[in-house]
Amino acid sequence: MAKTAANRALPEERDIPSKGAATRALIMETALGLFNEENASDVSTNQIAAEAGISPGNLYYYFRNKEEIIRALFPAIRDGIAEPLTYPKGEPISAERMANDYVSAIEVLWRYRFFFSDLIGLGQRDPELGAMIQTLQDDTIVTMADMYQDIMDQGDMVPVGQKTNELLALNSFLVWFSWVSFMDRASDPRKKREQRLADGALACLAIIDPYLKPAYRTAVHEALEALMNRRQKTKPKTRRR
Amino acid sequence: MAKTAANRALPEERDIPSKGAATRALIMETALGLFNEENASDVSTNQIAAEAGISPGNLYYYFRNKEEIIRALFPAIRDGIAEPLTYPKGEPISAERMANDYVSAIEVLWRYRFFFSDLIGLGQRDPELGAMIQTLQDDTIVTMADMYQDIMDQGDMVPVGQKTNELLALNSFLVWFSWVSFMDRASDPRKKREQRLADGALACLAIIDPYLKPAYRTAVHEALEALMNRRQKTKPKTRRR
Repeated sequence: MAKTAANRALPEERDIPSKGAATRALIMETALGLFNEENASDVSTNQIAAEAGISPGNLYYYFRNKEEIIRALFPAIRDGIAEPLTYPKGEPISAERMANDYVSAIEVLWRYRFFFSDLIGLGQRDPELGAMIQTLQDDTIVTMADMYQDIMDQGDMVPVGQKTNELLALNSFLVWFSWVSFMDRASDPRKKREQRLADGALACLAIIDPYLKPAYRTAVHEALEALMNRRQKTKPKTRRR
Repeated sequence: MAKTAANRALPEERDIPSKGAATRALIMETALGLFNEENASDVSTNQIAAEAGISPGNLYYYFRNKEEIIRALFPAIRDGIAEPLTYPKGEPISAERMANDYVSAIEVLWRYRFFFSDLIGLGQRDPELGAMIQTLQDDTIVTMADMYQDIMDQGDMVPVGQKTNELLALNSFLVWFSWVSFMDRASDPRKKREQRLADGALACLAIIDPYLKPAYRTAVHEALEALMNRRQKTKPKTRRR
């Protein structure tokens, strides 16, 4: 049944057959690749359709405009951030889990780098997305503070007051969210991606390092190093940007 | 003597009489105000000329394009960052000086907030400015690490190795540079500007807080609080955004 553009359902709500779901995923993945290479503001829906090998009309069946594609990518970004920070209550946060989660968090930054390097611009060009970004920011800082509180409660971090904990969470958030923009401007672009991810994880970790109990701190850093070594060995040598 | 646009001297190099210098300063200050309100990318040279009350032709006598105006603002931004970080060698860094400099650093962010909230975009739209931003970033991190080393040398900070010091400088830089963008997205826009500046200074300070010797740390925080109280009392109640 035909609907007007104004009142038709959002793509998520439509009853999309499996071929449709595949096309939708293809559009989103293609758009993500182009956004990361050229910035979202410089990429047109026509360009996305061409790169995906579909007609512009077919793209418009799934997404009304570019903003809708970006908003469709948002849940994966949000979940990618929330997942490493969410621990089953009562289960201690091991050094290995901690190291793994710092790397995962930086991985999300890298996979959606178009998003993190242009938060302000994206929010300004699409106020609906701007509100989503603001909520994401607020939630992430609260979740980080909760995680630090859990590490204090399990005895692996020097207890600090709520104000200090909120500052630690805020600073971790600021360092983490600005890491991709920083990497973009960094003066040594030859540095390998894997090394840069490790640098980002180390920078975030440095915020709480002085508050971690020595044994836990050593264990987290050793786990981080082991993890990065393992990743460098298993990753293929050439990879798509 | 008429020159072609291609080979005429840069504005800085021209022999501008004092009325010209005043017009040039007016254009720059007007542009800064508009950039801060609407983002540099949305402001046209015609808009700047209209707001400054001069003809577009008069503006073009001083600046070929918007990029040239932004580049003309750059030295003040660079010096505004470098000045608080530069200490006469051999002179100890007092707690008062430290507190004052953290506030000055955040003040620069606020005055040139269009710049700090769109570093990536500005660099992409003007590669010449992009190179200047990259140098600024590299220099600032080195200068910050040097400053922390000085505080260690005078005995007010726990000595850390070079790697850790570089991470502290990097994180201070990332928190500081991303503060304005963060404030823009922050969920409580009613918070007063002065309080937000103090929050920014506290966030930056929190990076090295755990490494400062207790007496020095207390003195810096007391100096910061006294400074912000004094400022809130002396500032006029209403002010231009």
